[in-house]
Amino acid sequence: MRGLLLVLSGPSGVGKGTICQALCQRHNRIAVSVSATTRAPRPGETDGVHYFFVSRERFRTMIERNELLEWAQVYQDFYGTPRAPVARSLAEGRDVVLEIDVQGALQVKEKLPAAVLVFIYPPSLEELERRLRRRGTDAEERIARRLEWARSELEAMPKYDYVVVNDRVEAAVAKIEAIMVAEKCRPVYFTAQGGKTS
Amino acid sequence: MRGLLLVLSGPSGVGKGTICQALCQRHNRIAVSVSATTRAPRPGETDGVHYFFVSRERFRTMIERNELLEWAQVYQDFYGTPRAPVARSLAEGRDVVLEIDVQGALQVKEKLPAAVLVFIYPPSLEELERRLRRRGTDAEERIARRLEWARSELEAMPKYDYVVVNDRVEAAVAKIEAIMVAEKCRPVYFTAQGGKTS
Repeated sequence: MRGLLLVLSGPSGVGKGTICQALCQRHNRIAVSVSATTRAPRPGETDGVHYFFVSRERFRTMIERNELLEWAQVYQDFYGTPRAPVARSLAEGRDVVLEIDVQGALQVKEKLPAAVLVFIYPPSLEELERRLRRRGTDAEERIARRLEWARSELEAMPKYDYVVVNDRVEAAVAKIEAIMVAEKCRPVYFTAQGGKTS
Repeated sequence: MRGLLLVLSGPSGVGKGTICQALCQRHNRIAVSVSATTRAPRPGETDGVHYFFVSRERFRTMIERNELLEWAQVYQDFYGTPRAPVARSLAEGRDVVLEIDVQGALQVKEKLPAAVLVFIYPPSLEELERRLRRRGTDAEERIARRLEWARSELEAMPKYDYVVVNDRVEAAVAKIEAIMVAEKCRPVYFTAQGGKTS
């Protein structure tokens, strides 16, 4: 019996993190993958919980040793998903959620075609801009760059298995729950779980 | 805005009809396709509600005029799905459910690849036999033939989009509801509905 690998992805500022948290609060058996990153911790972030904060040297070693399921450079920083914990949880039959950016999501799908890719879509570009500003950690120029980047990331949407508009978090989570139920009804999943063919 | 075409299918006796009824009771916007058939009405069946009961001559004309979305011969009888009412409901944005046998379902998928095929699977072959016997309308020899046929139909399962085990009707209906929510999150559906790309 294997778990489901769910990849929540979409432009920065779209609310991936909030949705991921809400989903995991409702389903405490879901394993959340903790990413490795070279960026500096933000206030309130704990090493090993929000991210594994690593040096650029350590990150390079992880790439070389093929210890990452995906990795990407976003602006100056590197982000990646350690492969081993994901594989372990899936083998134990636990569902795993990855909350990653668009580049990373497409890499995961290439390596693990059984991964289910969900694109979190903003209600509008105006709302996305509001959310990026509300975060309040970035300079104006950086926000403009992020918005332009987000716009280009929206074009990857057709490559995803599903698209969920994040207008209300509860509604988005309910759709993702439905997607998980549906994906477990796939014939290939049914057969892999030893579906009754008595 | 277009509706979703959901095809509920599976071996005879698996409980397609009960699930279809329960689903439509919970969602009164769903349009149920009424099949045409050449078989005699069973007690309690009404023409135009449960089936359109037609002569073999009329059925042949419907085939010739391409008025059927799918048709099949089961034992001595013909069954088919009139195309026009399905197309009309979908264009109006209503979801449509077809409850048809395995041959028919695969024909529909060929003609309308956007159709979502759900295979209703029996909890076990023993349970399927019990259900066929409970119906009580068929002779022993006919039951044996149905069972053999059902066994062969189970092999079509991998060609379906989803498989739902009918152990409890409520649980099966809940899974089908999740499948409908998920399918409406497909990128192609999102784009067809004029998904916000402002």
